[in-house]
Amino acid sequence: MLMDDSIEFHRKYKGKLEIRSKVSVKTKKDLSLAYTPGVAKVSEAIAKDSTLAYELTSKWNTVAVVSDGTAVLGLGDIGPIAALPVMEGKAVLFKEFGGVDAIPICLDTKDTEEIIKTVKYIAPAFGGINLEDISAPRCFEIEKRLKEELSIPVFHDDQHGTAIVVLAGLINALKIVNKDIDNIKVVINGAGSAGIAISKLLMNYGVRKLLLLDSKGIIFKEREGVNKYKLEVIEKSSIHGLGNLSDALIDADVFIGVSKANLVTKEMVKSMSKDQIIFAMANPISEIAPETAYLAGAAVVATGRSDFPNQINNVLAFPGIFRGLLDSRAKYVTEEMKLEAAKALAGLVKVPTKEKIIPEPFEEGVVDAIADAVKRCVE
Amino acid sequence: MLMDDSIEFHRKYKGKLEIRSKVSVKTKKDLSLAYTPGVAKVSEAIAKDSTLAYELTSKWNTVAVVSDGTAVLGLGDIGPIAALPVMEGKAVLFKEFGGVDAIPICLDTKDTEEIIKTVKYIAPAFGGINLEDISAPRCFEIEKRLKEELSIPVFHDDQHGTAIVVLAGLINALKIVNKDIDNIKVVINGAGSAGIAISKLLMNYGVRKLLLLDSKGIIFKEREGVNKYKLEVIEKSSIHGLGNLSDALIDADVFIGVSKANLVTKEMVKSMSKDQIIFAMANPISEIAPETAYLAGAAVVATGRSDFPNQINNVLAFPGIFRGLLDSRAKYVTEEMKLEAAKALAGLVKVPTKEKIIPEPFEEGVVDAIADAVKRCVE
Repeated sequence: MLMDDSIEFHRKYKGKLEIRSKVSVKTKKDLSLAYTPGVAKVSEAIAKDSTLAYELTSKWNTVAVVSDGTAVLGLGDIGPIAALPVMEGKAVLFKEFGGVDAIPICLDTKDTEEIIKTVKYIAPAFGGINLEDISAPRCFEIEKRLKEELSIPVFHDDQHGTAIVVLAGLINALKIVNKDIDNIKVVINGAGSAGIAISKLLMNYGVRKLLLLDSKGIIFKEREGVNKYKLEVIEKSSIHGLGNLSDALIDADVFIGVSKANLVTKEMVKSMSKDQIIFAMANPISEIAPETAYLAGAAVVATGRSDFPNQINNVLAFPGIFRGLLDSRAKYVTEEMKLEAAKALAGLVKVPTKEKIIPEPFEEGVVDAIADAVKRCVE
Repeated sequence: MLMDDSIEFHRKYKGKLEIRSKVSVKTKKDLSLAYTPGVAKVSEAIAKDSTLAYELTSKWNTVAVVSDGTAVLGLGDIGPIAALPVMEGKAVLFKEFGGVDAIPICLDTKDTEEIIKTVKYIAPAFGGINLEDISAPRCFEIEKRLKEELSIPVFHDDQHGTAIVVLAGLINALKIVNKDIDNIKVVINGAGSAGIAISKLLMNYGVRKLLLLDSKGIIFKEREGVNKYKLEVIEKSSIHGLGNLSDALIDADVFIGVSKANLVTKEMVKSMSKDQIIFAMANPISEIAPETAYLAGAAVVATGRSDFPNQINNVLAFPGIFRGLLDSRAKYVTEEMKLEAAKALAGLVKVPTKEKIIPEPFEEGVVDAIADAVKRCVE
């Protein structure tokens, strides 16, 4: 029903974005100021000092939302043009939540090197790059190289946006159950862009015991064909294991799923350590239904869905992250920024309860709190 | 003075463009329609039938304004970031005159093949490509290849926008002096993007006797190092010559300058055939001042300047061209479209006089007349 509504909604608006001119052009004088001949002076000034582009053009507030359409929502590799409505939606959220002017760039290539080159070529007009829905493991190489080769911030939201919100939720969930970050055992099911990034951020925050699983089970060093990004994660963990998800979850304190529907059973939750924390974020159907998890003894449950409490929603992070990056003219996104953003987000919930470990998307102050956290890391 | 005003103007607005969301996102319901989970259905529909992108996204009305910053206004190769205020200005005019959502794409490469690839890669989100301020002769190859390899319209405004407005002006100037297109001798000084495109369009309209000059004088086949684009033009002409601009202008009916300040003297105008038509479009100072040309006997003078009558201004053409292309979902810009657009533009001046051979930029009906002409060529 909602689905058909969405088609009609999109048909009605014929696209969710438009360009607005901030200047009025009604007379020859207007023309000569906004365009030729006056604009020549502006170009000359920027040619001499390129940082003036931040003061005299829209660069300071403009972000490219770049996707190759290979990992769109739960739909997978649907191609760049089919990704466009999602990127437009993302741009809508950038504007409505963060006041950021975001432009969808849907790339008709899946080649890692070509994507890197293309983003570098188009970078001059942008103040930042948001990578979106690019499949793993290519997304890691693309982000790493662009961070090295560009001097505007590059942020892959599927990785870091998700990781920031998960960490914020976990910080508050741990308060509820009164457990310490450095003693808990965390099981992360799903080793794509989100799973890897969550693992890394959680360990940077203090998690030491972490098992990472992909569709073949617990990832271990000697397993054949494990990519370097997965290896990097498990090598940092103080615990290792063999087996499947049931094996992994025994005595675990935290389950974080960025995987598939209904993979977690009541028995698995019961096998976990008391006061289980369950982040079942598969969409549209989570790894375990919240009511089932609670029946099995869970203390706190979060999902990716808006119809349950504790929705782990990226919109809580990326508008504020970019607002902070753009306002401070940061050149890079640092680990510290992500940690501080997560702490700031968690701090907005004064008294965490199992029904509320993170703010709602429309709560006031979210964007500012995160933007300020990012800016503090730059100053 | 205007120049300093323009810097202040740009500093005040901090960029001339912004993104506007056409949809309101104030509730969870809004979110679920404009973004996840509803948008998934829209993406799936487009994945099955890519033409639906024209109905369900902003593609139908969005144009990329692509420049590598190598031939910006009279400033030359100032680089992509210094070109940005000009591209923003162009996007302002696209919106204010034609209702077209145009996005500046400033490319950090001058390599022909890399530019072609990049534009192809970013094409999915756009309904058309406007190439801008890319130096000749690379601009010819880039445009040709993109026209061959993309199925959205590609238009290099410096070439064809200029050519359309020049032809419109010439049609009316010839009415005033009562001369026929197929008998006149035309001298075009400047063989860059505009000079070549004007030559071609004029010959496609009926001019047979045409001399094309570059900085070395009249171009002839045997001259060393003449590029293929110049050759293509002069091979179509029924007259040929040797020498410089003074030699070329003897007995010429029409002078069209896309060259440099003060290259044409009173004597040169006098040497032309009676009822001289002078289009002296160098900016900011024309090849000959209108008053000097008139004193030497000219019948009609046009320039590129807004402070004289008969300004040959691209803004008369490109907004309507793209309005027509987008509304008709044309896949290509054809010669016929350019000819019809020029005729439509000329037709808007009911009684041409030497003070008015083309409409003013802010006259009503210009965009519609040109858009309709383009659309008639598609239907």
